[in-house]
This record gives sequence, C-alpha cells and structure tokens, in this order.
Amino acid sequence: MSRKRGRLFVISGPSGTGKGTVCAELLKEIGNEFSVSMTTRGPREGEVDGKDYYFVTREVFIENIEAGNFLEHANVFDNLYGTPKDMVLNRLERGRNVILDIDVQGGLQVKKAMPEAVLIFILPPSLAELRRRLEGRGTETAEKIERRLGQALNEIKLIGEYDYYIVNDNIDEAVALAKSIMAAEAARVPEAVKPIIRDYENESKQK
Amino acid sequence: MSRKRGRLFVISGPSGTGKGTVCAELLKEIGNEFSVSMTTRGPREGEVDGKDYYFVTREVFIENIEAGNFLEHANVFDNLYGTPKDMVLNRLERGRNVILDIDVQGGLQVKKAMPEAVLIFILPPSLAELRRRLEGRGTETAEKIERRLGQALNEIKLIGEYDYYIVNDNIDEAVALAKSIMAAEAARVPEAVKPIIRDYENESKQK
Repeated sequence: MSRKRGRLFVISGPSGTGKGTVCAELLKEIGNEFSVSMTTRGPREGEVDGKDYYFVTREVFIENIEAGNFLEHANVFDNLYGTPKDMVLNRLERGRNVILDIDVQGGLQVKKAMPEAVLIFILPPSLAELRRRLEGRGTETAEKIERRLGQALNEIKLIGEYDYYIVNDNIDEAVALAKSIMAAEAARVPEAVKPIIRDYENESKQK
Repeated sequence: MSRKRGRLFVISGPSGTGKGTVCAELLKEIGNEFSVSMTTRGPREGEVDGKDYYFVTREVFIENIEAGNFLEHANVFDNLYGTPKDMVLNRLERGRNVILDIDVQGGLQVKKAMPEAVLIFILPPSLAELRRRLEGRGTETAEKIERRLGQALNEIKLIGEYDYYIVNDNIDEAVALAKSIMAAEAARVPEAVKPIIRDYENESKQK
C-alpha cells in the first residue's frame, strides 16, 4: 500500500484541563515528534534552545512572520510565540504524525492554513472542577483564577470549530481516547481511497 | 452532559475478509446489540427465529417493502433479506449503538436513508490472500472462488462511499481499530457541540 503522508493533530484546551499531560503521554506512547516553537521570551532555567523552544530576538521573529514562515503565531504578555511551518510540513511529508499543543486561537489559524489538520479540544469535566484544579496549583491569585475561568468559557465557545472533544475526567481514559482518534483518522477513507483501489486493481490486472 | 443518541455503524467487506468475525468480536467486547434481519429463506439447522433472522413468507416481506419498513433490502439468490428500520431507530433513540453487518450495496442504501451512519469497509490484505482464505475454506468450487474475487474487486471499487477502511491482516488489530473508530466517532464535535457549550454556559450563569 502506498506510503501515506503524516497527519497533523492540534490539541487545545483551557489552562488546567490537562492538555499538556495528554500531549506528553501521546508523544511518549506513540513516539511522535513534538514540534518545537519559536519564541522571543528568554529561556527559563533548564530550558534548552532547539528542544524546548527556538529562542530568538524580536527582529528575527518578525522577519519570520513577514516571510510567512509560521503556521500560527501569537502575542502572549508581550512575548511572541510561533509554530515554524517548514518543520511541520517536512515531518508530514516523511509520513510522520505531528502533534501541536497550542491554544484555540492558534488552532483556528492552523485549520485555516491546513484544513486537513485534525483539531482536538480537551475539556474539563466542569468549570467547578477546573476551578479546583487551578486553585490546587496554589500558584495563582484569586483574581487570576477568575480571569482564567472566563477565558476557559470563551475558548469552549469556539469548540464548534474543532473536530473532536475529550472530557478529561481521567487522564488514562483521555489519553486512550486521543489515541483512538489518531488511529481512526488514519483509517479514514477519503484521502487514501484512490491509492487503495489502484493497488487492488493493479494486482487484479497482473494475473 | 446531555444524553446522546446512539450511532449506527455499518460494517461491510467482501466475503472472506473476516467481516463477520470483526462484527462478532465488537459485539462481544463492546456489548452492542446486533440488529436482526428479516429473510424469506428457510431457517438452517440451529437457526432461531427472532435471533438469527426473522423468517417470514415472501408475502409478508413484500408488504414490509411496500410499507417502507426496511433500512435496506436485497435479493440474494432469489431470497430476500432486509434490515427492519424500526428496530434500528428505536435502539439509536435509546442511546445504544447499532452495528449492521451488510454488503456494500446495502451499506450504500443505509447511507442514503441515514447520512449520519458511519460506514466501515473491511479489506483483505491483498486479493491473493483473499483467494488463499476462500480456498482454505475448502467449501467452494474454483469457479465460485473466481466469481467471489471478481465480486470483491467490484465492491472495493465502491470504497470511496465509505467513511473508514480496515485492512484485516490480523484480527485482533482489526478489532482494536474498529473499536478506536467507534470511540473516535463518539468524540466528534459537530453533532454534540451545542449541548456541550450549553452545559458550561448554564454552569457559568448559575454562580
């Protein structure tokens, strides 16, 4: 059967939904490569350039925007973050899947640039549970938690643009469902149908 | 979260692809109910009316066709076979999934009647392997095997109408993939999106 192009999966969800954990588990268990983003913020302790991020100056980042080199980019608290397009396309061409852990706005940019991308939305079981998780971190002020909950609801309102949703009630089940979605997407007919029929027809003619 | 309608899965594939085994394993492991077909052919030894088939007279069958009671029906070697619509719809309404093991022509009829049905096509690894499997049964003449292989290719040419394909190289993997497809379909956003957003919005307003 013909070699297939990889698939691009975007995983989004409000802060506190466990999206990062789902992505990390998927990468660990399925062995996909994580896309490395580019940012203008400085490296935090232990972060490695080219592994955690490509750390670049604002000038270099803006040159890349102008050259159309990003699949999506965003300004977060005055730092710029972007997903380099060439790296993603190169991996897909090599038949490898790519997982992008990006926010909803970024996910919508990706969908616009690559309509074949598969968008998965990670949901908390409820806003009350999301509040408990954010409070449990003990790192954020009450005001910041309220803001995050408001942001969460605004992101959830965009779920109609996404292809799949996973309610992360239990991390193992959430990861299993994400893996099922990846497997099912690889088994979808439309994109793959012509080479499949051709293989069987060729085999039939060779007799 | 709101109670969801069940989903209808149609599983088709040429004779000898292991479609029946996949269906049986799915039903066993997932606990879905199998739809009982209606037929005009006589019961074979051990077959139970209402369990294996509803065995009816030709007159009763034709009355049911005329009343529009079938989701699909077909004439196979002068025997009529059909899938009663009410039983399927009733199960879906109760939130249960339904699996139909029917041929490609029947699958296309179902898709026309219920576009939300999910069609899964089971493929043999190759025509050569399909031939080996048919020959291995030891029950069919060489001529009949040739005819089945020709039919198989004709069915495969219609795979573009199907949603998913599974190459049944290994029965456990084929069953696992079918289960992944069922899980992924249950996690698709479009149909379910409005009740989801509504739940979170209601919860947000209740504060």
